[in-house]
This record gives sequence, structure tokens and C-alpha cells, in this order.
Amino acid sequence: MSNNFALGEFALIARLTRGLRATSDQLLGIGDDCAILDLHAPTLLLATSDSQVEGVHFTLTTSTPEQIGRKALAVNLSDIAAMGGEPRYALVSLILPPTLPLATLDSIYAGLRRQADDFATTIVGGNISGSGSSETLIIDITLLGTIERGHALLRSGAQPGDTICVTGTIGDSAAGLFTLLHPHQSLPSTDVAFVRSRCRTPQPRIPEGRVLSQLGPAIITAMLDISDGLSGDLTHLCERSHVGARIHHAQIPLSPAIQTIAQHSEQDALEWALHGGEDFELLFTVSPGHEHQVINAVREATGTQVTAIGTILPQNEGIHQVFTDGRDAPLAVRSWDHLKPG
Amino acid sequence: MSNNFALGEFALIARLTRGLRATSDQLLGIGDDCAILDLHAPTLLLATSDSQVEGVHFTLTTSTPEQIGRKALAVNLSDIAAMGGEPRYALVSLILPPTLPLATLDSIYAGLRRQADDFATTIVGGNISGSGSSETLIIDITLLGTIERGHALLRSGAQPGDTICVTGTIGDSAAGLFTLLHPHQSLPSTDVAFVRSRCRTPQPRIPEGRVLSQLGPAIITAMLDISDGLSGDLTHLCERSHVGARIHHAQIPLSPAIQTIAQHSEQDALEWALHGGEDFELLFTVSPGHEHQVINAVREATGTQVTAIGTILPQNEGIHQVFTDGRDAPLAVRSWDHLKPG
Repeated sequence: MSNNFALGEFALIARLTRGLRATSDQLLGIGDDCAILDLHAPTLLLATSDSQVEGVHFTLTTSTPEQIGRKALAVNLSDIAAMGGEPRYALVSLILPPTLPLATLDSIYAGLRRQADDFATTIVGGNISGSGSSETLIIDITLLGTIERGHALLRSGAQPGDTICVTGTIGDSAAGLFTLLHPHQSLPSTDVAFVRSRCRTPQPRIPEGRVLSQLGPAIITAMLDISDGLSGDLTHLCERSHVGARIHHAQIPLSPAIQTIAQHSEQDALEWALHGGEDFELLFTVSPGHEHQVINAVREATGTQVTAIGTILPQNEGIHQVFTDGRDAPLAVRSWDHLKPG
Repeated sequence: MSNNFALGEFALIARLTRGLRATSDQLLGIGDDCAILDLHAPTLLLATSDSQVEGVHFTLTTSTPEQIGRKALAVNLSDIAAMGGEPRYALVSLILPPTLPLATLDSIYAGLRRQADDFATTIVGGNISGSGSSETLIIDITLLGTIERGHALLRSGAQPGDTICVTGTIGDSAAGLFTLLHPHQSLPSTDVAFVRSRCRTPQPRIPEGRVLSQLGPAIITAMLDISDGLSGDLTHLCERSHVGARIHHAQIPLSPAIQTIAQHSEQDALEWALHGGEDFELLFTVSPGHEHQVINAVREATGTQVTAIGTILPQNEGIHQVFTDGRDAPLAVRSWDHLKPG
């Protein structure tokens, strides 16, 4: 009998939601980072849900309870950042195994509350349930935000000739996960601490997203956050925009830490950057001639580096990667699938 | 070591959310059926989350997949009904065990979509994740709704002298659960079908809630939905309103079906009605002199019966039940706790 794993996460969502129509006050169908809803307020409403499942997204042995709480909200904040929005209200659903110590739960919730405070987000509701016969802890959060009319940045506006950019550095989270899964490896401790913090307490790019949405969709033509890996999320952006792309390995921003760790552990830093996932950096496209303006605006307002990594192509040219030796090849997706155990 | 079960659901929520302050645009703190948010739109925004956990709230042996999908949304719709609001948008998070057949998932989602259509609700987003090592299916839904300014019905406005009312009949769902857990009992099939449908496909009282919120909080002084049982939810209402209450067993509306089933199975129908839970009827208080107006307004608009079952008392008089023989005793709460396995 066919089960849901055979399809994969994205095909399954498409199957279940097929034919669901957006209403007149819902400005966007399913498939972007957030739903956009028009309640006839001065700003539009953004809504997104994301869950963290023990054993799939985190373990209590590789993260502290406070880190788990912080990250459960961070992944949702990153979806609001991906539209350029401002986070406002969170609803927190907890599914609790009976054996979870109360002190652990207190620390998880304290992490959640600190992360909410850091981004001016109010926890307004939620729900608690026992997990029945399961021993799996689940944190499912719905986050509501706002965005000025005409300023939401979608996945769907990229045009051939646009420049492809990313914030920050890419692949650190995957390197951090590698060090957590291979704790016996002797690696430089400062670099290990850096990539692990990128993995366990990712910083949602809310301020950077705000700068980009204020520039508006005429300049920032498409945007999403990198949660599934650069290869996978670039493919999502291209599919929604009906375009192709070419990115250059030599231009992908890598932190000093990821390079040191890759070298010491004989791993490929670019592999982590292209296919690792959970960076929660912003991937966006800039209309021609605006690259320097955008890079400067983000740096001045937030201190964050923006790097151009490639160019949007017509759809029929496909999605390409250019290796450091100049070789050009199709970019295959090897994304994280949250239906597969981690 | 202390675990989260020792505290119970409500004490745990209070512990985790202690000191969370409502912001100026959040008109209500945690503790009512929905959060009320002011986005400066013509209407206020309502937001609520509720999860259905396999083995706690449902089983695939006692409900069909479509019934499970319907009920997962119905319990959220009932929270919007409890404020008198109009449901608008749903975000659906699914946690899927790898062994769940795709056909089962399709049917669950079809049930969800039909329930959404029945109440003019649009599914605007959500999330799918694997369940890791757990075999437990979880459906967690956030529902957004709207309510006219000044019309939201809270738990907190009941005053001594107000009349306590309920919609429909009480206890049917608990009787339905009894027949599902004791399938060997020979009981009248029409009555069994009725109480089982009340258990497996509860009808959220959205139209009734709308009539009551249009009458407004000067007439309908407090309201909630009966999810934890009449005894438990009356206690919630009294705690939030700082009042006591007296309800009369003889006045609690019982369906013919529950009475027949109780008689045939030597069970106590009033026990089901007082402590059974999951009725998803509305429990509300009416300011003195308005009882007939309210009963008529709901009947004319919806056909649904409203029954007066008691009176609000000053807080220091406590919460009482009057037995059918006239004996008066404190009403103890024996509510459903969703941290305990079902």
C-alpha cells in the first residue's frame, strides 16, 4: 500500500491542497512562505505555521531545552522575514510526552519567550496536549505578522537578468549538525562553537527582510528563506517565478569556520552550503542595476553582508551551477525532506 | 522527578504563560477561547489553536478518516463560536507517521476541507512533517476569525442574578464514546447512531454564537463552549467571572437518545452530561429579564433550542448542583484532562 513517505513533503502538500482556491481577501494561495490576508486594516496580515518534531528537527541530546524553544519560534520568524514582514503574535501548541520533566518544559518555554521578546512578538495563545502512547515531543507554532500594502516579497517575481543574492554565510548550520553527529572528531573549538550556534540557535533575518521589503518588489523581485538548502530553495523560487538560474560556487559566501571544519574533517563545505538546509538566511533576486544600492542598504541598516551569487535565466535554460574550475552543470536538488527521519 | 502530568493541563498553561502581558493591540490575555487582536481593521481578529492527537482525542478504529478530519476543524470552529465570531482562515499542521496509508490521509484532508466549506472557512496554509520514531498521527489547527468591535463574548462578564443557559442537549458525546468503547452492548441502533454522530462529528455552534454576539455583551454577559464537560466549563466561567453558580439537574437538556442508552446500559445520563465533555454546545449567561428574548432569537434564527439550567451567584456562595430530589450540594469538577491518555 502506498504511504505518504513515497511522495515527499512538497508533492504531498500539493496533492492535499489541490483545487483550494484563494478567496478575494486572501491575496496569495498556498505555496509561499506565509499566507497574505487582507482584513481591510492599514497593513496586510501574514500567517505561517511550522512544527519541530523531536527526532526529526531536534533531539534533547544535541540541543539544550532553551535552544529547542528558541529555534521552534525562529523557524517561524524566518518565514515572516522571508516576506519582509514584521512578526506580531504567536500561538504555541505543545504535544508533551508524559515522561518529559517539568524542568525541561519550563526551559523550552523560557527559550520560546526569550526568542519572542527578541523580536517584539507576543505569545497570545496555544494549546497543550499529551502525546498519547508516543514519546515524541512536538512544538507547533503559528506566527502572525504584518506587512505594508504593496511591500510583501513573494517567491514569484524573479525575471531573467535579475541578480541572485543571499544574506550572511551559507552552510554553517549543516556543518554544525555534522559536528554534533560526529562529536569524536577533534576540531577547532571556536569554529565548532560558531557552526553549532548557527545550527541550534539560528537568527531569523527579520531586520534584513524589513530593509528589503521597504525597497519593494520593483527592486527585490522575489525572496524566500533558505530552510531546505540553497539548491532546493533556489529551485522553489525558480519554479514559482517560471525562470531558470545560474549560480557560481566561487561566489557562495562561506564563513571562515565552515572552511576550517571542512578542511579538518575532510568534508566539502560547498556540499553543506548547496544542500545542507536550515541556514535561515534570505535568498532573493534584485532587478538589474540595483545590486550596490541593495547591498549598501542592508549593510548600513543591519551590518549584515549581502552577496551576489548568480543570475536569473529564462526558464527553458534550466538551473545551473558553475564549479570553481569554470565547469557548468545542471544543479540537482538534494534537499532536506521533513517527512524523512533526521 | 516531577513531570508535566502531575500538574494537569490548566495549571501547566498557567505556569508556562505566567507574567505574559497583553500588548495594547491584544485585547485579551491567555485564558479565554480565542485571543482577540486589534489590527485596526473594521473587525477584530480572533485566533485559536487546538490539536487532535491519535490515542488521546481519536482513534482510527472508532472514527473514519473523514470524521477525524472534520472533527479536527470542528473543535477549533467551536472556539470561534464560543466568542460569537465568524471563522475565516485555517492553517493545518499535520504530523504523519510513515506507516499512515496515503488513502487514509487523503480522506482525513477531504473531511477537513468539507468541514471548512460548511463554515465558509479557507485553508490558507499549514505544514507537514514526519513523526520521527512515533506512530502517532497529530492534526494541529490554528483558526482565525473575525468579530465586530464591542461584540466579542468573553468568559469573564457573568454577574450574580444572570441566568445560565446552554444550547442543544448535553452529554450525547460522552454517551457516544461509551457506545464506541462498549460495542458488545446491545442498544437501540437509531439512538446509538445519534450519540455516535454527536461524538465523532460534532457541529460547532457558529450560527448560534453569531446570534448571541449580535445581542451583545450587555445581554449575553459571558460565554464559552463545553469541551471539558459542563462541570469543568461552568467552573472556568465562574473563575474568570469571579462568581458562583447553582445549576439544576432537572433542567439540564438531555436528548431522548441519551436517556434510552443510559437506561439500557445502566449508566447515569446526568453523569455524562455533567462530566463527559466534548459536547461543543455553548454555555452562556443572560442578564436578568432577557431570557425569553434570547431563547426566541436563537430558535428563530437557527432552530436550536436554548435551555436555562441555573443562576449565577456571588463568588463566596460557590458552585452548586441541585439534584432531582431537591438536594443541594457543591458541584465537583471531574473534567476531561487532555494530558491524560484517553
